[in-house]
Amino acid sequence: MTPLLCPGAFLSPLEIDAAVMRALAEDLGRAGDITSTATVPEGTRAQAIVVARKAGTMSGLPLVEAALLKLDPMVSITRHQRDGDAVAAKTKLMTVEGDARAVLAAERTALNFLGHLSGVATAAASFVKLIAHTRARVCCTRKTAPGLRALEKYAVRCGGGFNHRFGLDDAILIKDNHIAVAGGITAVLRRAKAVAGHLVKIEIEVDTLDQLREVLAAGGADVALLDNMDLATMRRAVEMVAGKLVLEASGGITLATAAAVAETGVDYLSSGAITHSAPNLDVALDIEM
Amino acid sequence: MTPLLCPGAFLSPLEIDAAVMRALAEDLGRAGDITSTATVPEGTRAQAIVVARKAGTMSGLPLVEAALLKLDPMVSITRHQRDGDAVAAKTKLMTVEGDARAVLAAERTALNFLGHLSGVATAAASFVKLIAHTRARVCCTRKTAPGLRALEKYAVRCGGGFNHRFGLDDAILIKDNHIAVAGGITAVLRRAKAVAGHLVKIEIEVDTLDQLREVLAAGGADVALLDNMDLATMRRAVEMVAGKLVLEASGGITLATAAAVAETGVDYLSSGAITHSAPNLDVALDIEM
Amino acid sequence: MTPLLCPGAFLSPLEIDAAVMRALAEDLGRAGDITSTATVPEGTRAQAIVVARKAGTMSGLPLVEAALLKLDPMVSITRHQRDGDAVAAKTKLMTVEGDARAVLAAERTALNFLGHLSGVATAAASFVKLIAHTRARVCCTRKTAPGLRALEKYAVRCGGGFNHRFGLDDAILIKDNHIAVAGGITAVLRRAKAVAGHLVKIEIEVDTLDQLREVLAAGGADVALLDNMDLATMRRAVEMVAGKLVLEASGGITLATAAAVAETGVDYLSSGAITHSAPNLDVALDIEM
Amino acid sequence: MTPLLCPGAFLSPLEIDAAVMRALAEDLGRAGDITSTATVPEGTRAQAIVVARKAGTMSGLPLVEAALLKLDPMVSITRHQRDGDAVAAKTKLMTVEGDARAVLAAERTALNFLGHLSGVATAAASFVKLIAHTRARVCCTRKTAPGLRALEKYAVRCGGGFNHRFGLDDAILIKDNHIAVAGGITAVLRRAKAVAGHLVKIEIEVDTLDQLREVLAAGGADVALLDNMDLATMRRAVEMVAGKLVLEASGGITLATAAAVAETGVDYLSSGAITHSAPNLDVALDIEM
Amino acid sequence: MTPLLCPGAFLSPLEIDAAVMRALAEDLGRAGDITSTATVPEGTRAQAIVVARKAGTMSGLPLVEAALLKLDPMVSITRHQRDGDAVAAKTKLMTVEGDARAVLAAERTALNFLGHLSGVATAAASFVKLIAHTRARVCCTRKTAPGLRALEKYAVRCGGGFNHRFGLDDAILIKDNHIAVAGGITAVLRRAKAVAGHLVKIEIEVDTLDQLREVLAAGGADVALLDNMDLATMRRAVEMVAGKLVLEASGGITLATAAAVAETGVDYLSSGAITHSAPNLDVALDIEM
Amino acid sequence: MTPLLCPGAFLSPLEIDAAVMRALAEDLGRAGDITSTATVPEGTRAQAIVVARKAGTMSGLPLVEAALLKLDPMVSITRHQRDGDAVAAKTKLMTVEGDARAVLAAERTALNFLGHLSGVATAAASFVKLIAHTRARVCCTRKTAPGLRALEKYAVRCGGGFNHRFGLDDAILIKDNHIAVAGGITAVLRRAKAVAGHLVKIEIEVDTLDQLREVLAAGGADVALLDNMDLATMRRAVEMVAGKLVLEASGGITLATAAAVAETGVDYLSSGAITHSAPNLDVALDIEM
Repeated sequence: MTPLLCPGAFLSPLEIDAAVMRALAEDLGRAGDITSTATVPEGTRAQAIVVARKAGTMSGLPLVEAALLKLDPMVSITRHQRDGDAVAAKTKLMTVEGDARAVLAAERTALNFLGHLSGVATAAASFVKLIAHTRARVCCTRKTAPGLRALEKYAVRCGGGFNHRFGLDDAILIKDNHIAVAGGITAVLRRAKAVAGHLVKIEIEVDTLDQLREVLAAGGADVALLDNMDLATMRRAVEMVAGKLVLEASGGITLATAAAVAETGVDYLSSGAITHSAPNLDVALDIEM
Repeated sequence: MTPLLCPGAFLSPLEIDAAVMRALAEDLGRAGDITSTATVPEGTRAQAIVVARKAGTMSGLPLVEAALLKLDPMVSITRHQRDGDAVAAKTKLMTVEGDARAVLAAERTALNFLGHLSGVATAAASFVKLIAHTRARVCCTRKTAPGLRALEKYAVRCGGGFNHRFGLDDAILIKDNHIAVAGGITAVLRRAKAVAGHLVKIEIEVDTLDQLREVLAAGGADVALLDNMDLATMRRAVEMVAGKLVLEASGGITLATAAAVAETGVDYLSSGAITHSAPNLDVALDIEM
Repeated sequence: MTPLLCPGAFLSPLEIDAAVMRALAEDLGRAGDITSTATVPEGTRAQAIVVARKAGTMSGLPLVEAALLKLDPMVSITRHQRDGDAVAAKTKLMTVEGDARAVLAAERTALNFLGHLSGVATAAASFVKLIAHTRARVCCTRKTAPGLRALEKYAVRCGGGFNHRFGLDDAILIKDNHIAVAGGITAVLRRAKAVAGHLVKIEIEVDTLDQLREVLAAGGADVALLDNMDLATMRRAVEMVAGKLVLEASGGITLATAAAVAETGVDYLSSGAITHSAPNLDVALDIEM
Repeated sequence: MTPLLCPGAFLSPLEIDAAVMRALAEDLGRAGDITSTATVPEGTRAQAIVVARKAGTMSGLPLVEAALLKLDPMVSITRHQRDGDAVAAKTKLMTVEGDARAVLAAERTALNFLGHLSGVATAAASFVKLIAHTRARVCCTRKTAPGLRALEKYAVRCGGGFNHRFGLDDAILIKDNHIAVAGGITAVLRRAKAVAGHLVKIEIEVDTLDQLREVLAAGGADVALLDNMDLATMRRAVEMVAGKLVLEASGGITLATAAAVAETGVDYLSSGAITHSAPNLDVALDIEM
Repeated sequence: MTPLLCPGAFLSPLEIDAAVMRALAEDLGRAGDITSTATVPEGTRAQAIVVARKAGTMSGLPLVEAALLKLDPMVSITRHQRDGDAVAAKTKLMTVEGDARAVLAAERTALNFLGHLSGVATAAASFVKLIAHTRARVCCTRKTAPGLRALEKYAVRCGGGFNHRFGLDDAILIKDNHIAVAGGITAVLRRAKAVAGHLVKIEIEVDTLDQLREVLAAGGADVALLDNMDLATMRRAVEMVAGKLVLEASGGITLATAAAVAETGVDYLSSGAITHSAPNLDVALDIEM
Repeated sequence: MTPLLCPGAFLSPLEIDAAVMRALAEDLGRAGDITSTATVPEGTRAQAIVVARKAGTMSGLPLVEAALLKLDPMVSITRHQRDGDAVAAKTKLMTVEGDARAVLAAERTALNFLGHLSGVATAAASFVKLIAHTRARVCCTRKTAPGLRALEKYAVRCGGGFNHRFGLDDAILIKDNHIAVAGGITAVLRRAKAVAGHLVKIEIEVDTLDQLREVLAAGGADVALLDNMDLATMRRAVEMVAGKLVLEASGGITLATAAAVAETGVDYLSSGAITHSAPNLDVALDIEM
């Protein structure tokens, strides 16, 4: 069964199997599901329905499938929703029919992925909805649960958000410390430009309009990160840049402030909270044996 | 530098290195920290202070140390707080002195562990505080971020909570489906007892006092999980059991309801939210180069 | 082909694939089975029968299947016996039909698992048989071949035995050193009880009846390990405890002494020898090409 | 601390760390040594002596050291014996001084390696002693515990034995099935010789003197394996070959028959039992805290 | 000993250890260096000099160090050259003093890294030198030895070249098939722009000036890859683009044609041959024991 | 789909999957093929032909298949050639029909294996052809790309060459340093013979005929490596040895000198260049979507 990913969302398919194997091993431990082995007769069949108990945006259904298939390669799965779908409370997501012990053993691992990633997707979608009247986009950061970054970045996409860097190696992001040690904005951009290849973007963090002006003058940057600026300053930054740089607003942006920030005309709002503090979405696997 | 764990909290030391290596690899990718390589001169030294920006209970400091040591084996670390400590906002946790590129490259990985685990510890500690006037204890569930269970269980301990099963293999927990398929409570307990070894506890989920009565009559259970019972029913369960079983209250317990549940006289309150929905604690690494 | 485990025996299914892959890699090395590549024509078919040359209790047949399937995913397997079956000498266990080179390459790995685990199961079964007239059970220890613990524990179950701890993390076992450093039995049990969760059993080792008395008085223990006691003392221990603790007899118990120990009324006899010194069971794979 | 291997015994040093890490992870599981965490105060020191309780030939001391060092990198170790030494009962092998929790947590893993490998070495040494008056050598087979082959082969060397193939890829061993499918001894040797490189030995199994004669006539073989021949036939095989081939006697050779087989003049006696059925050597770690 | 990388070259330090461990395991196999174990007395010391026998640009010295340190953690290393240095034939690169067996066992692994990576660096440097009079840069492709990409990309930097994408995930490169299936250049760029985040560059391959014109009109691309264009066409492409896009010339560029291509005014020349067909640089480790 | 290896070439089938998984992970990174995800509609089908653009000897087709199957388990593959076949330029090797995104994502990984290994096979075949009129054979060395040794050794076989040692552990090769430290040729051979098992060949390097004479006199060696001897000396070595040893000529042998060396009568010519410096064979995957 080929994984069915959310359209327009990026994820190496190899991440799915690797993450599921690690999580199943973590839950099954050495002896496996001793409760089901002890109490469920060999060969018992189970029918199960995966449901969203609360409304939200789905992410992680391919991992649910992978967990079930790993423990019962003959399991039968019928898909009712896919990743990226926004669903109402009590929506059936998937119907499963297979070996009862396998379904019970896979249940918690499957739901932990689905609840966590749908939680991230739902948090992202809330942001997206609030700024839908503007041209701004929401993006995530590298503030992710260790070991789950690729999956959480995928979940942000499922919720309609965009991705920032996946790691320290796929774009240059110059922060205050880099600027200081390199001798200022002009100097640091010159250094970065000199070694960056032509397929690497350069972003630089600025705290003030003066710094932003120096970035524009120095050249070489693709994106400026406006760090903790107030709304008025952001508006002037948008005017000053006039499309010559992509502008990303960052720093403590919440659902309460998102719309106002987006209305300043910036291109991106970045939020660590949509990954590091998104509450779980309540999902369940209702079994009939 | 030997990891300094929270006293009374359980964690295999091998988990620390394994988790840190996986997380660093995830962040450094193929090319490493290209920004610092491009902008920070070779040999630059950095001094840094790890701080808690908000008040909370610490968990994850040994992983911060491991991440720093992995990238700079000669880094110098001074500990100001340890895991399990409850600290005020703006508390200095650790002072670091080492290679600037290494400290910058380790920063995000280190903080992701510390912020996530301290978030869990702080959530657990909030629960613990609310029921400190009772004899009840808080415990976690298997609703954890995939791949991070051992660490999150450790964080619950750092916050003063207790641990439920680490996986499907270290205790028997009989739920409604097991009861149904095995032919009732008496039958399922007989089956479980027949195969469980003498070092495996048996817990059984009950929805009603009738079920609880059957559990007591059947014998063989160590713990009963009171699933979504109201307060009055829980109080009667406590009376009925009279210490012959450990009682765990479960199902949608929140900070708002925890005290009332604990006051019924149950032994444990279990909460999935303290692991799966704990918001990140705001921590930072302030660098001076 | 789903693995068919011994009923009532515990093993994570993930252990099977992982162990088989590691063992095949160990045997095939870099160049694979150079003898068969050199001498057996491509496409040659083989029929083979897995047999027990000596009488014994089977354990490891799912690993035999996994090894064959890994090297020939189209191999056809007919099961004649399953794990946990006690068979006579010269019993056919499995018929195999597949690619000759694959069968030859998998042979030694498959038989090493089957011979080793059936050896353990047969050793366990010998113990079980000797004490079948009593209520005592046989259990294993952590004295297992490094890297094979979960499999050997499963084999003990196949032979009718029970499992002790799978590792240092799934139960508390307090030994003489712990007692000494903690300041005595009462103190150590208080410490253990204070941090153990409600799903963790506590066992304590005692050498004398005085110690056992202190354990009973202190409370908190689930199991007492009677270490190297003589039969008379064990009998008095059984009387003294009167069902308030599970009693495990340990220390140099052999097939010669097992019945007498069991007749004292203890609940468990533990034996390291059934895992660490069980001789291989003689099994073979007879091939016709 | 560099591993100190038995002189003249072969083992990749990378095997030591890999095996020890796998075994420690298996024993420590997710939560680590919960008993010691619960009962031994942080910072407690331990002195311990590793002893052989029974007489035997040592193998595995470098793995004991590696296990201790992994859990306490500052542990102090004094070596009294080394691998390959034959020691009397109650011999002190090593003195250890380090963190008490670490020593307790490493104990079982360390002893499992030492007891198992010394068991193999002692079994090999028994064989070696029995045939010391002849020019024959003892060697092992591929009948080893899955995942432990390199270590068990090393243990055989520690006991004075020699190694057969480490895997299917490092020598050609032509058995009856290969002969049959290739069309006879002359044909199979021609095929093998045609593809074998100049650094690969060719051994061929023979059941009769007629087969041995054909091997000699065909050329190309380096070693002939005399499979289950009686003593008289083996003596005639030795005469017939007259040094033109190395002769290996195989098939059910026991301590009772070894001397007689060796006295026939064959070069090697191979025994599966010295690896697959060697009983554990009784070793212990006596701790004082 | 902290790895000393080439200044301005990108490589995750975690890649070094992982690659060296894999390569040592590959070479040492199960039994390790049996020749040295058999013939070099325990404790023998060796002094060795790593030399470049031919002139070239160095890459891989940190891997040489890592291989030596892994087998002898106490080895003493004196660095004479570093990665990125262009050296004459017979240049001493490093002096080593350590355990003779360890140095001999590490030798081939160390030299295989150094010879291969220095071969790539030298190939890159040859290109760089030929176009030094222009503003063009040389870059590599994804045509690398499987499993060695990060190291080969690092080697290209050591030779003065630049890096193209490290993988399919860190930049968008639209080729003819993507254009065709998406319905043309304008359509494909619209699709790509719609989902690409702000830290992902977009490159598009063009065969003709008409296509290039459409790329300019459509907007959204950062880089155009001029695929197999002749010099005249490339010159017109440079004029047409006038700095509004980065231009990369690709397709069969050799040392013979590099200067002419660079003189057309393009920004980058990409070459698969500098990674996939660079001959080894002749390096050696001269040992004195 | 079972891998179809070159007849008479040795490769553990486990190497194929492991190498392909590592290479795909390297190329797909965290987010996978973002270009195809962005531009190719879900469910698009692709037909593709794998072709050799230049003439050469094939090696690596099973890895091409494995890469395609990993990303699209339902892909349909038709084989036109197999490993070991010598093909003309523009030969179709394989026809593929499957999911377009999967084929595009697997393309570069598949071709990197095929181009690299066919390059090695083609280099080996060139050598083989030049000496086909003699009885000499070509063999490789341990000078291989780190991590790819088993595959490159297989490729040498595909080209008609033979393999030298796969690692330090599968044969003894005594070099000048070993001779020196052991006290001369006679002494070193005595030591080697004393510990080598009967399935391990012994090769010794000699620079002069005097040394060769000593090797013959000492006995115990199977192969002599003639290191950098001139043709006349090699001829005298062949005469002197008269079939009592296998002779391997080594040291800077090129295509220009191969025939002359082979005509001296030596048994093997070894060449590092056929692995470490073989240029890539130009292969492509032509896609139609």
